[in-house]
Amino acid sequence: MYRRLGRQTVQLSSGPSILSYAGIAGKKEGQGPLKERFDYISEDSYFGEETWEKAESHMIRQCFSLACDKTGLAPSSLDYIFAGDLLNQCVSSAFAMKDSHVPYFGMYGACSTMAESLSLAAMLVDAGYARTACAVTGSHFCSAERQFRFPLEYGGQRSPTSQWTVTGAGAVLLGASGSGLRVTHVTTGAIVDAGITDANNMGAAMAPAAYDTLKAHFADTGRSPADYDAIFTGDLGAVGHDILQALFDADGVRLGARYMDCGVLIYDLNTQDVHAGGSGCGCSASVLGAHILKAMEAGVWGRILFAATGALMSSTSAQQGASIPGICHAVAIEKRDS
Amino acid sequence: MYRRLGRQTVQLSSGPSILSYAGIAGKKEGQGPLKERFDYISEDSYFGEETWEKAESHMIRQCFSLACDKTGLAPSSLDYIFAGDLLNQCVSSAFAMKDSHVPYFGMYGACSTMAESLSLAAMLVDAGYARTACAVTGSHFCSAERQFRFPLEYGGQRSPTSQWTVTGAGAVLLGASGSGLRVTHVTTGAIVDAGITDANNMGAAMAPAAYDTLKAHFADTGRSPADYDAIFTGDLGAVGHDILQALFDADGVRLGARYMDCGVLIYDLNTQDVHAGGSGCGCSASVLGAHILKAMEAGVWGRILFAATGALMSSTSAQQGASIPGICHAVAIEKRDS
Repeated sequence: MYRRLGRQTVQLSSGPSILSYAGIAGKKEGQGPLKERFDYISEDSYFGEETWEKAESHMIRQCFSLACDKTGLAPSSLDYIFAGDLLNQCVSSAFAMKDSHVPYFGMYGACSTMAESLSLAAMLVDAGYARTACAVTGSHFCSAERQFRFPLEYGGQRSPTSQWTVTGAGAVLLGASGSGLRVTHVTTGAIVDAGITDANNMGAAMAPAAYDTLKAHFADTGRSPADYDAIFTGDLGAVGHDILQALFDADGVRLGARYMDCGVLIYDLNTQDVHAGGSGCGCSASVLGAHILKAMEAGVWGRILFAATGALMSSTSAQQGASIPGICHAVAIEKRDS
Repeated sequence: MYRRLGRQTVQLSSGPSILSYAGIAGKKEGQGPLKERFDYISEDSYFGEETWEKAESHMIRQCFSLACDKTGLAPSSLDYIFAGDLLNQCVSSAFAMKDSHVPYFGMYGACSTMAESLSLAAMLVDAGYARTACAVTGSHFCSAERQFRFPLEYGGQRSPTSQWTVTGAGAVLLGASGSGLRVTHVTTGAIVDAGITDANNMGAAMAPAAYDTLKAHFADTGRSPADYDAIFTGDLGAVGHDILQALFDADGVRLGARYMDCGVLIYDLNTQDVHAGGSGCGCSASVLGAHILKAMEAGVWGRILFAATGALMSSTSAQQGASIPGICHAVAIEKRDS
């Protein structure tokens, strides 16, 4: 049975259940608009570890454990873990999960990792290859700054279009049976290269990918933005948010107030000095795990589209003058009573 | 329907077909024992590009195109691409595939990437989420050396246990219908950390992961090594090959001559100055795409187990004194007449 709708979308027949989820964050994120929503906020940027890379790993492991604890499932009983991050060779996820002894799929989707992981986890559970699967990712401001930009001590100036890497992690645990929140559709993005070369303007680099994937999702499913109570992009920030809205406006498609961006939601852009907003794997992941899914369970939204975005570049590709290809993966989530 | 055998293995119900495959390599690999097997050998380490990173990307794209050409399928008609590599943020795969406009899943499995990608591609095709899916990866000696070790010009000494990163790429294209070679089982590895900290001895770091996954595969399927005509590990090299054999010997399980390692097969270890053998995502991928699958079609082997291995570390984790966690994913492939 071929279960594909159109070019990029799969409709899940069973609608795998979201068994549990968690979202944790660092101090700065814990002072933002979502401060009441996180499961845990660390006052210590080292999370008790010796290095920021180990802190990132610690945070991802902690978030994973929290999600498992909420279901009462032993972490080691899971069928699959899907995880990835921004650090070179995705070490923070690998070290976070190295003692779990769960079949492990390492992902690289940059800041789209949560949607990418959730997509594959949902498909494998829906197909009966797994009873349970976890999607988990995170990012850390300090490890990202020193890897991608400058030593923190340097105190480099930031351009107005730049974004602030979120210190945070998110985990979502899927199961074959359960009630409540379900993943119903997976739209997998193709890479879109709009030719942007400014590494301080990721929003502009990723917005065309979000446009491409959302358009595909609407075309494949026959749905329109109005079929969703809320649509979230990953971490386009304020700049990318406006570009995406303008791209749809030009098509005569109104995203309207239901359209929000995780990079805009996580900080107070007026007072927290983050310029265009949040970014990093932990941005959309922690907003999903701490805020969006909780609000859905509380009845705020009945059906949402979660479309995390990623910029598929490295410091080396930027230094070699290459453009910044973007990607966006979208997952539709619905609250069902049965 | 729950389609899992034991803890880590999935039995594929339809047995997705291998529609086509390709393996290409650089000059050094083209002088090794598999020289007659590669689809293409480049005399130019730059593959016509300006940098080694772009060369790696070029090679991956070329290998992907070759595999597509053999089927007559337009690359843009594929349902999914699974790809990843060793470069920071997996840029060589992303740039290789950025203009394909195919739904793209970025992977990070280090040198196990081909088995990891093939596993997911096979499951999605088997479940009916895709008609076609491609698994592709590669590595380049020069880009890996300068990223992980030293500038080539430095001419650093290599330890006897060190391996040589393969300049090569492999691609495998799966389809829902077709005859001949089929993927029948997928055993997904958990991360195994044996506590090895010597970044010049990846074979020792990865062999315990290969042991763990192969043992799980045999336990889950009820098969023994003798049920396979050939068993290939990814890139344990000579050191890891012997460790794995010793681990099974201690259990009274004889792997025997059917057990080979892609890192040993790709070079002449006596004359090519590669110390313990080949490594890199391109090692097992090019050996699979250029040699193993061709030999199966020619009737040399009827049923094989392809178990690529990866070391989940980075220069940063090594510098911080962390151990080297390993992973191994295994895929069973069979030749069927119908």
